[in-house]
Amino acid sequence: MANSETDSKGKERASDHRVHLDNPHLAGMKEDILYHLDLSTSAHDLPAMFGDVKFVCVGGSASRMKAFIQYVGSELGLSRPGEDYPNICSGTDRYVMYKAGPVLAVSHGMGIPSTSIMLHELLKLLYHARCSGVAIIRIGTSGGIGLEPGSVVITQQAVDACFKPEFEQMVLGKRVVRSPVLDAQLAQELLQSSKDLKEFPTVLGNTMCTSDFYEGQGRLDGALCSYTDKEKQEYLRAAHAAGVRNIEMESTVLGAMCNACGIPAAVVCVTLLDRLQGDQVSSPHEVLVEYQQRPQKLVTHFIKKRLGMA
Amino acid sequence: MANSETDSKGKERASDHRVHLDNPHLAGMKEDILYHLDLSTSAHDLPAMFGDVKFVCVGGSASRMKAFIQYVGSELGLSRPGEDYPNICSGTDRYVMYKAGPVLAVSHGMGIPSTSIMLHELLKLLYHARCSGVAIIRIGTSGGIGLEPGSVVITQQAVDACFKPEFEQMVLGKRVVRSPVLDAQLAQELLQSSKDLKEFPTVLGNTMCTSDFYEGQGRLDGALCSYTDKEKQEYLRAAHAAGVRNIEMESTVLGAMCNACGIPAAVVCVTLLDRLQGDQVSSPHEVLVEYQQRPQKLVTHFIKKRLGMA
Repeated sequence: MANSETDSKGKERASDHRVHLDNPHLAGMKEDILYHLDLSTSAHDLPAMFGDVKFVCVGGSASRMKAFIQYVGSELGLSRPGEDYPNICSGTDRYVMYKAGPVLAVSHGMGIPSTSIMLHELLKLLYHARCSGVAIIRIGTSGGIGLEPGSVVITQQAVDACFKPEFEQMVLGKRVVRSPVLDAQLAQELLQSSKDLKEFPTVLGNTMCTSDFYEGQGRLDGALCSYTDKEKQEYLRAAHAAGVRNIEMESTVLGAMCNACGIPAAVVCVTLLDRLQGDQVSSPHEVLVEYQQRPQKLVTHFIKKRLGMA
Repeated sequence: MANSETDSKGKERASDHRVHLDNPHLAGMKEDILYHLDLSTSAHDLPAMFGDVKFVCVGGSASRMKAFIQYVGSELGLSRPGEDYPNICSGTDRYVMYKAGPVLAVSHGMGIPSTSIMLHELLKLLYHARCSGVAIIRIGTSGGIGLEPGSVVITQQAVDACFKPEFEQMVLGKRVVRSPVLDAQLAQELLQSSKDLKEFPTVLGNTMCTSDFYEGQGRLDGALCSYTDKEKQEYLRAAHAAGVRNIEMESTVLGAMCNACGIPAAVVCVTLLDRLQGDQVSSPHEVLVEYQQRPQKLVTHFIKKRLGMA
């Protein structure tokens, strides 16, 4: 029964490529306030503002998303390099949002809860705006496992801290598990874009999504730590053996929520360090800045190819 | 065994009121980079910068923490109203940090993971700075249950989405449960401060901490929703019966981490709506702004009393 429902929804979605929300209550709402984005269906003409969006790029850092929109806007010939874009969510300091033609850039802060709030409201925004054919791509930072720092990982499978492809969430006090499914074709297209660029090493691999940066990722340098260096190394090596190539804090919720709404999603993260070698992010500032531009370059090239510009 | 360890640590902590970190690995580190705060033990003289801190106030929103430091700085006679304070973490956009005399204000973003990253680095900062007698107070926003909007809740017990006083975390792939213990005496002092002020209703109650704002808090207006209005109402009424008076997304991790380091902590949140009446945050902007000033006023009065100024 559940499967046939999913199948029929899948077909319906495939037929029009629209954003479909799995919430029957929304139809009865007169107004929808997207509180953390400071947008609403009554105060804003969402179809006019966002109806042409095809690529939504999300990332943790507000300033990185601003740098990205300036870069992609310039590369798409929509603006001069460094031209200023207004922050569409300027009425709140929770998230930032910028738009350049068919590209929307939105910050999501750090961690699953912060990202889930943004995604709930972003998915409703795309739905209210009657968008179709949208892809959502996270461009982020991560810790690598067994990779040269600066390597980019395109996520094949997002997994939890037990290396399982699951996103667990509490709903009305009960554990609900969803599948964090990313789009395989999108991942392949992104990998091809990196091969075209030939500027930095890029691999397809599993991405472990955790809810803590220190103990949750086996670091020894947090305020609390109750395990030995040996136990840490065993955990990271077990992750590597399970196909994990990088660790971050948002990929499973992105995969689970986009999958539930029939939107293809991808995760493209640069690795800032190799966790088999250490815990601290100690590379010079300018090196880290260049690393963080790599997912932006990769995704911009992918967008140009999809638009027939590269 | 575990209990006697806890007891001896408790006594040690009580004797000097210093910040004690439960991590033997830190002693062997030559340098400690607090990456998400853009501070480090080699680049900054942390004892000189932060050694006099006695009150750390944390909250989700960066702009709210800036407004708070201006308010408390002015109330303590340290500055003129609205005077600008430099952001100590200006080298990063992850968090903001401001200082006015013995008061430090730090943002933590939304949700447990974002808050845990900040707390790991804040607790290490207080440790490196050799601070003593510090209290950490979260001043936040929340959804109320059965309270008039604008009411302030001082947390008696932080509980999870099953109403249990537990903070569960994955460490090396295994579930670890910690106790989110807040300081009872601090809560009573804060309640007395509100009684002194007589400006807004304040109650002592349990606070439910969730990892999602929509499905995780029983809302019907997210992008996804798989339950009925009746099931939602039953969940919220069960929460109320368990003593829960408000819902937010950070209290358990704050209680668990501060307790593990022997630092008294408190949570003071205003309620922006009554969840028994609805899901959307729809009050006018100026009303919400005034609500958000209430925890700031309450905590500032408490600080003035502790400093013998009120």
